Amino acid sequence: MDDITFAVLGTGGIGRRTLDVAQHKEGVTPVAACDRNGIAVDHDGLDVAELLDATEGNIASAPGDDDDARTDGGTTAVKQHGEDAGVVASAQGEPTETPIQDVIDEAVSENIDAVLMALPNLTHDFIPQTAERFAEAGYEGVLVDVLKRSRVIGMLDEREETFVESGMTFVCGAGATPGFLTGAAALAAQSFVEVEAVEIWWGVGLKSGYEDNRGTVREDIAHLDGYDIGTARDMSEAEIEELIDEHDGVLEFHDMEHADDVLLERAGICDAEDVTVGGVLDVRQDEKPTTTTVSVTGTTFDGETGTNTFQLDDCTSMEANVNGPALGYMKAGVRMNRDGRYGVFGPAELMPGF
Amino acid sequence: MDDITFAVLGTGGIGRRTLDVAQHKEGVTPVAACDRNGIAVDHDGLDVAELLDATEGNIASAPGDDDDARTDGGTTAVKQHGEDAGVVASAQGEPTETPIQDVIDEAVSENIDAVLMALPNLTHDFIPQTAERFAEAGYEGVLVDVLKRSRVIGMLDEREETFVESGMTFVCGAGATPGFLTGAAALAAQSFVEVEAVEIWWGVGLKSGYEDNRGTVREDIAHLDGYDIGTARDMSEAEIEELIDEHDGVLEFHDMEHADDVLLERAGICDAEDVTVGGVLDVRQDEKPTTTTVSVTGTTFDGETGTNTFQLDDCTSMEANVNGPALGYMKAGVRMNRDGRYGVFGPAELMPGF
Repeated sequence: MDDITFAVLGTGGIGRRTLDVAQHKEGVTPVAACDRNGIAVDHDGLDVAELLDATEGNIASAPGDDDDARTDGGTTAVKQHGEDAGVVASAQGEPTETPIQDVIDEAVSENIDAVLMALPNLTHDFIPQTAERFAEAGYEGVLVDVLKRSRVIGMLDEREETFVESGMTFVCGAGATPGFLTGAAALAAQSFVEVEAVEIWWGVGLKSGYEDNRGTVREDIAHLDGYDIGTARDMSEAEIEELIDEHDGVLEFHDMEHADDVLLERAGICDAEDVTVGGVLDVRQDEKPTTTTVSVTGTTFDGETGTNTFQLDDCTSMEANVNGPALGYMKAGVRMNRDGRYGVFGPAELMPGF
Repeated sequence: MDDITFAVLGTGGIGRRTLDVAQHKEGVTPVAACDRNGIAVDHDGLDVAELLDATEGNIASAPGDDDDARTDGGTTAVKQHGEDAGVVASAQGEPTETPIQDVIDEAVSENIDAVLMALPNLTHDFIPQTAERFAEAGYEGVLVDVLKRSRVIGMLDEREETFVESGMTFVCGAGATPGFLTGAAALAAQSFVEVEAVEIWWGVGLKSGYEDNRGTVREDIAHLDGYDIGTARDMSEAEIEELIDEHDGVLEFHDMEHADDVLLERAGICDAEDVTVGGVLDVRQDEKPTTTTVSVTGTTFDGETGTNTFQLDDCTSMEANVNGPALGYMKAGVRMNRDGRYGVFGPAELMPGF
């Protein structure tokens, strides 16, 4: 495959890590990145090392912005505010008041192959609406997101015709879960003619990355008993710390609304209600508190019932398992886009058919 | 996706099982099947139950034909010889002296979407040459095989231009291993930026299926120390029984030439030499003598080394793990073919990009 150029919308934890991982991958060249205040563009390829160094511990963030999951990727993160924060601190950065529109303009005029939307989960419809802006501008490439909310998939589907008319291929939910593990479930299903249950169980140890991932932690809290997205968003940092203290740093989640369910259903593998997602997050140590495991239980054509499993090594970090697959699914999306296959696709739909 | 029509070349163990599994799958309709003496065609869909019942324990096979892996799918297999054997015993069957050419003609004239080549491994180049006949006849669909020999991939590659000119998409090595497990390895690699080792280790218990799978067993024997494909092919049935007796029915294989290596290399995941394939075959009990496991060891972008694993439940039979994926990869191949993507592809190339 020819080289793929891509842009990153948002240079919080996920955006930064994607740029970092891309340095280790063949065939992908980051050409643009933006945050709230600035944009860096080089169609011959960004100097990722310079960009990451210049913005380490320095993320464009407005006061009171903590609830938008906009986090940086440094281990000594100090959020900075004002016009010198974030991408503009890089020699490649230029200030802008319209960073997303600037990336859209670059993507359309320079035919950037793909755009990774590593945007904060401000509202449910923020990513669908942003995708619509790309389509309205006539973008003909690939959008990838790493969203985790089941209901957003439907919002993307509602816009599918717009994406198809523009010639866009949208790969949604392409991180670790959904994403990596949804794909694994789709593949593990191949032994079976009927899938009865998919259980996705993740472990994340986040001590060294806790400061960088407060937004993700906040989003996870929405899945705890007695909380929802609204209440989690309204919690102060102090309230979150208190909650974490109450649990000695270890939060266990069950029955999460995590998009894997609808993504497996749309690939025809099982009903959404047969999918359960849960996991354990430990913010006080880096060791995973439990092993990330996908279990797919089904019946074979010859009448046996069994469970196939996929396990990630405990030493693979959340960042490795989000950003590797995000780039992998991006490559698959570009293949499809170049073949003229447009619309909205989940990870399981990029697997062998069920 | 619209319904997929497909033909099966060869109604030995794999061909029969594929027809059987297809009955449990949505969106795939078998419309033709052939064996040495006959062909059954119905473009509205074969009556698979009738075909399988009529040919149960009744497979077209010439005397002395045992070494060609042409096996049936029954548990009370009795090979029958003569002009009433095999597909012609079905009410849907017609005798023919040119079964492969007949399927080619049907596939071209009726636009059959895909053809599964469940042919005996007569010689290394038999499948490549048969594929070439499809291309020369102007076939514009998908060919799928479940081959296990690394060197055959190169022979297919040599013919890639011919396939592309015809508009054919060839998905090779799309059974259990290579196939299912190669795909799992490709997916498991997504945590890593560099893959150091892929270990594929399979267990097969074949007591009830032993008679049906003598050809497969013979091919496996070629991987034992002191044997190769030539010596295994030249062994008499009695010699094979003696060998199996010497091992108390349990054969253990290491460093098999099993195509997974070249298929992972061509997908850019690792070097062929980093892939090892082995396993344990027990022909005297159906329980698997070891759990089929794929282990992928690699390094993450953040410098950790770990091993991700994929395991099949011991109760999933070899047949389930060959034929489900064969149909799954066939569906993926048809997607690609309809998008105009032609050529030769291994299972790992149908996964997210590495």
